[in-house]
Amino acid sequence: MSSISNLEDFRSVLARFPGPSEDASNGARARNAQLTKPPGALGRLEDLAIWYAGWRGDAQPKLGNPQVIIFAGNHGVTAQGVSAFPAEVTVQMVANFTHGGAAINQLAKTFGAKMDVHALELDRPTADFTTGPAMDESEFLAALNTGWAAVDENADLLVTGEMGIGNTTSAAAIAAALYGGNAGDWTGRGTGVDDAGLALKTRVVEAGLAANPGRDSLEILRCLGGRELVAMVGAIARARVLSIPVILDGFICTAAAATLEAAQKGALDHTVAGHVSAEGAHRVLLEKLGKEPLLSLGMRLGEGSGGALAIGILKGAIACHSGMSTFAEAGVAGG
Amino acid sequence: MSSISNLEDFRSVLARFPGPSEDASNGARARNAQLTKPPGALGRLEDLAIWYAGWRGDAQPKLGNPQVIIFAGNHGVTAQGVSAFPAEVTVQMVANFTHGGAAINQLAKTFGAKMDVHALELDRPTADFTTGPAMDESEFLAALNTGWAAVDENADLLVTGEMGIGNTTSAAAIAAALYGGNAGDWTGRGTGVDDAGLALKTRVVEAGLAANPGRDSLEILRCLGGRELVAMVGAIARARVLSIPVILDGFICTAAAATLEAAQKGALDHTVAGHVSAEGAHRVLLEKLGKEPLLSLGMRLGEGSGGALAIGILKGAIACHSGMSTFAEAGVAGG
Repeated sequence: MSSISNLEDFRSVLARFPGPSEDASNGARARNAQLTKPPGALGRLEDLAIWYAGWRGDAQPKLGNPQVIIFAGNHGVTAQGVSAFPAEVTVQMVANFTHGGAAINQLAKTFGAKMDVHALELDRPTADFTTGPAMDESEFLAALNTGWAAVDENADLLVTGEMGIGNTTSAAAIAAALYGGNAGDWTGRGTGVDDAGLALKTRVVEAGLAANPGRDSLEILRCLGGRELVAMVGAIARARVLSIPVILDGFICTAAAATLEAAQKGALDHTVAGHVSAEGAHRVLLEKLGKEPLLSLGMRLGEGSGGALAIGILKGAIACHSGMSTFAEAGVAGG
Repeated sequence: MSSISNLEDFRSVLARFPGPSEDASNGARARNAQLTKPPGALGRLEDLAIWYAGWRGDAQPKLGNPQVIIFAGNHGVTAQGVSAFPAEVTVQMVANFTHGGAAINQLAKTFGAKMDVHALELDRPTADFTTGPAMDESEFLAALNTGWAAVDENADLLVTGEMGIGNTTSAAAIAAALYGGNAGDWTGRGTGVDDAGLALKTRVVEAGLAANPGRDSLEILRCLGGRELVAMVGAIARARVLSIPVILDGFICTAAAATLEAAQKGALDHTVAGHVSAEGAHRVLLEKLGKEPLLSLGMRLGEGSGGALAIGILKGAIACHSGMSTFAEAGVAGG
């Protein structure tokens, strides 16, 4: 379908999500067992290649066309002073993405990924979620459809990233609403707030939860999210429909994605966690989702940077799986 | 110098090892502080880029010419039955490297690395170290010089890998001789021996230590090593002289490299640990060397595979450092 008309429409898309190809998974597993290496010696690379093969429906797949999409949004909650950077930085960084000067530009280029940037109504921040829902349903659907339409049908891997001053506050509120616990358990320093800033941010998350009680997962995303988080969810869902595996980025991306898993169990089975961020709650969130991160390098930039860096791992895994000789082909004794 | 004539010659090379450029390190640190990201948000990528800049003597370096070198050797100790694979696999795998069918071929290609293979007298295994030294001094020097000469002067990054049935036994013996402890603490399943095989392997390591007592670090390498381990040491030393940073691979590569650090403190400062292997003693060895691995993916293949996979991390780090815009260039508010 070319766009999502309403929330029920989206729920029925989730309910009909396709699974991986059993044939391709089994074929990949059989191929893996014949490759010129001791069984299991490539560790997680072997699991990754079999997982990727299943989702691509090809026992010996290629990975040649990764796409990185950055969504940017502005947050009304920044008026509360939750970030170390002013809200103008969102639009400035979008210009930086467009001119090729940001970290994600260099990483996308390094790993041969196409990179697209979607700025979502930056001059119209979401409402401050401490006073009520961040978005109404039409705003939510517009952002969701931006993400839905942003995925390249010819991509064979997707990384979704974000830029939005204030959005670790939004992610913390979403995680707390989904999983419970204290606001402080999910709130971190983001781009670098000090102790007083962290205490303020925690109070803002508490206020957001109090102002938006008792919601289900997609409603949590609408009430506490931002346009860039909603758009990531739209893109991750569209990738599933198109059989495109996804690498999740950091805390914000994962918090947004978690609403999808809460709405439909297994909705993130076509995704892997690219890295674990230095934002402490990210590790907890990944544990809740049962995702083991590929990388742990203390990154906390967003922009899809951790996910993009993990493209290299996936490329390596699939190159080994699909390019190596079997014992028979190479004339190597199989141990 | 074009080759090493004797052990004393090599010791004096180590004693004169150059350090990193202070100017380039300081310049890289200053540049890093101005890039369009919150301070520290790229985590270890920032440290890696500054480290690399120092060793390359360039505050804004490029990484475009990585070299992977695989050294292969045969081990007399395989007569004791220490491996799950027969010794013929060494030469068979060298043919597989040459024909492009091994994991390392796919990884080198994925990360744009030149790959060279050096088979070291495969028809003449080292002596069984349970009965005395594995190599005499002339055999040791020949292997060292193969490694020394194998490094491309125009490379800007080096990964050293190995192939040699039986060489986790050799690595375990080296680690035990360098750091003490029980043979069992350093001995693992290698390519996949069973419980009985592991017990036998541990007794073989003990016998090797008993047959070659009281040696210093380079003598430990000669008495308990194999030609491919010695060649890796030669290549790592030559890379230092040529200001080429090195990514260490797994347990065997790290055990060989550790003899260099024991011979000359700081001798591995131009190296990073590419990954931590599933061979349990590797993590302990890295701790002894104060090296935090870049990747932890349960790999245990050797061939330089873990090191080669980490080329992508280093490429990403240096692409960000050298390619990103500064706050001033991009017109972004600096927080």
